[in-house]
Amino acid sequence: MKITVIGLGLIGGSIAIDLRKAGIATSLAGVELNAGHAKRALELGLVDNILPLEEAVKTDLIVTAIPVSSIKNVLLKILDLIDDKTIVIDTGSTKSLICKAVANHPKRTQFVAAHPIAGTENSGPDAAFSGLFINKTNIFCEKEKSSANALDIAHKVFDALKMRTIFMDPVEHDKHVAYVSHLSHVSSFLLGQTVLDIEKDEKNIFNLAGSGFASTVRLAKSSPDMWAPIFEQNAEYLSQALLEYIMHLQKFQYHLMKRDVKELHKIMTSANHIRDVLEGIELKQPKQQLIEK
Amino acid sequence: MKITVIGLGLIGGSIAIDLRKAGIATSLAGVELNAGHAKRALELGLVDNILPLEEAVKTDLIVTAIPVSSIKNVLLKILDLIDDKTIVIDTGSTKSLICKAVANHPKRTQFVAAHPIAGTENSGPDAAFSGLFINKTNIFCEKEKSSANALDIAHKVFDALKMRTIFMDPVEHDKHVAYVSHLSHVSSFLLGQTVLDIEKDEKNIFNLAGSGFASTVRLAKSSPDMWAPIFEQNAEYLSQALLEYIMHLQKFQYHLMKRDVKELHKIMTSANHIRDVLEGIELKQPKQQLIEK
Repeated sequence: MKITVIGLGLIGGSIAIDLRKAGIATSLAGVELNAGHAKRALELGLVDNILPLEEAVKTDLIVTAIPVSSIKNVLLKILDLIDDKTIVIDTGSTKSLICKAVANHPKRTQFVAAHPIAGTENSGPDAAFSGLFINKTNIFCEKEKSSANALDIAHKVFDALKMRTIFMDPVEHDKHVAYVSHLSHVSSFLLGQTVLDIEKDEKNIFNLAGSGFASTVRLAKSSPDMWAPIFEQNAEYLSQALLEYIMHLQKFQYHLMKRDVKELHKIMTSANHIRDVLEGIELKQPKQQLIEK
Repeated sequence: MKITVIGLGLIGGSIAIDLRKAGIATSLAGVELNAGHAKRALELGLVDNILPLEEAVKTDLIVTAIPVSSIKNVLLKILDLIDDKTIVIDTGSTKSLICKAVANHPKRTQFVAAHPIAGTENSGPDAAFSGLFINKTNIFCEKEKSSANALDIAHKVFDALKMRTIFMDPVEHDKHVAYVSHLSHVSSFLLGQTVLDIEKDEKNIFNLAGSGFASTVRLAKSSPDMWAPIFEQNAEYLSQALLEYIMHLQKFQYHLMKRDVKELHKIMTSANHIRDVLEGIELKQPKQQLIEK
């Protein structure tokens, strides 16, 4: 199958690598507006060539992996340009706006709204790697609006990436990811900022911070270019999640100031239940093994 | 050297393992009030025998690794019981209260106030492992109040654990760890709680949560028995840190509701500076390598 990947960063690049590996892609074209990224993508062999959008759409399958702020315009343009056989899959992290934007397009059935939930704190073509998606969850939204053929091809793609696919309503999707993904990123960004603010002398953070701190603020390294538009598009639900989180923190601080250790203990014991959820997540991930120097 | 470890959990157990391995401990006694933990510690061979406190203090070196809520009383009792040659090292996560409590004890010079900054989200003797402390930071507080001999032995111990030792005033210590350790734990506990609260149907968290979420809430699995007393003892500084954190979150939420993407971008870009700090931390840790199934 001839495939075009639009946006050759962590997600698009990793998809390209594994679709070629799986034999799904017989040829791979890329569309990438950032000249440096385009050059790197070619050097890394992520795609065979870089084409302008108008040429790149003449293909069997188009996968878009660009910031959610651009996707609406790019996607409508793609749907206008493609012939009747080309299938288009979007992989963005918010889905309501996209689904609404294409709802009445005459080629809506050729489109599949997906969200493969995977990533690292790194970005750009150099961050792409084989195996990023293994055992992780992919979501299709409004599958009833895609043709059987489009869905079939989309399933082939995400099966090749070794993902488990589930189905959700786009609004439900956006609400849930606000809590389990976007809120984690905000909490990490601002934890990082709080500590940077206080510890003007970064030497002290360096000396005192352990692996617990590193784990908690890891996501604060994420790309603002990618996340600012996601947060904007999901502002309503993320804001709700943030308010809940702030409320929990304030309640904790209140009990802390009262030295109400029993109540603090109760809150933490309840939060410990996340252990069961995390064990489930860890089962899905590639095994990490601690290797001593 | 004959060594007694008081408290055979993650910290005490791991110290016992590596002091034996390094040849520092020729015999190892344990004090452990939890009968189940005492039994497991013997089964695991962490110590040679379990003794009552009164007998266990007849030794060359005593290392305490118990919840900070008990340490004051236990430590004063130990200092009352020991002869003039026994050295005592505490490893608790808060240091001001301890240092104040022993300040005027006639055997103060035989005591070293330490904080080896290491841990995982697990607890109890089964969580103990060799190498926990490698390349991590240890802090001595009020070293001028310990005898040259006591400091010498304490250095031998933490060198054997392969830690880098630095020196801090106990109040400065407590303030800094509030930001780089305690705040991370609170933010994690309450992030976990917020998501558990909203997602009554845990299946959804399980499906949608990725490795980013798992990393950010990992510390929410930590032991409330250990952390509640630490938070209580460091309530002033932790509360300051929490207020700063909440203020940052509220500011972010304000810009989010205004859809001020430029400002959100600016905040995240600034938080990205944590990358430099984290690279420093990662250099200190044993290498983690991703192994695919």
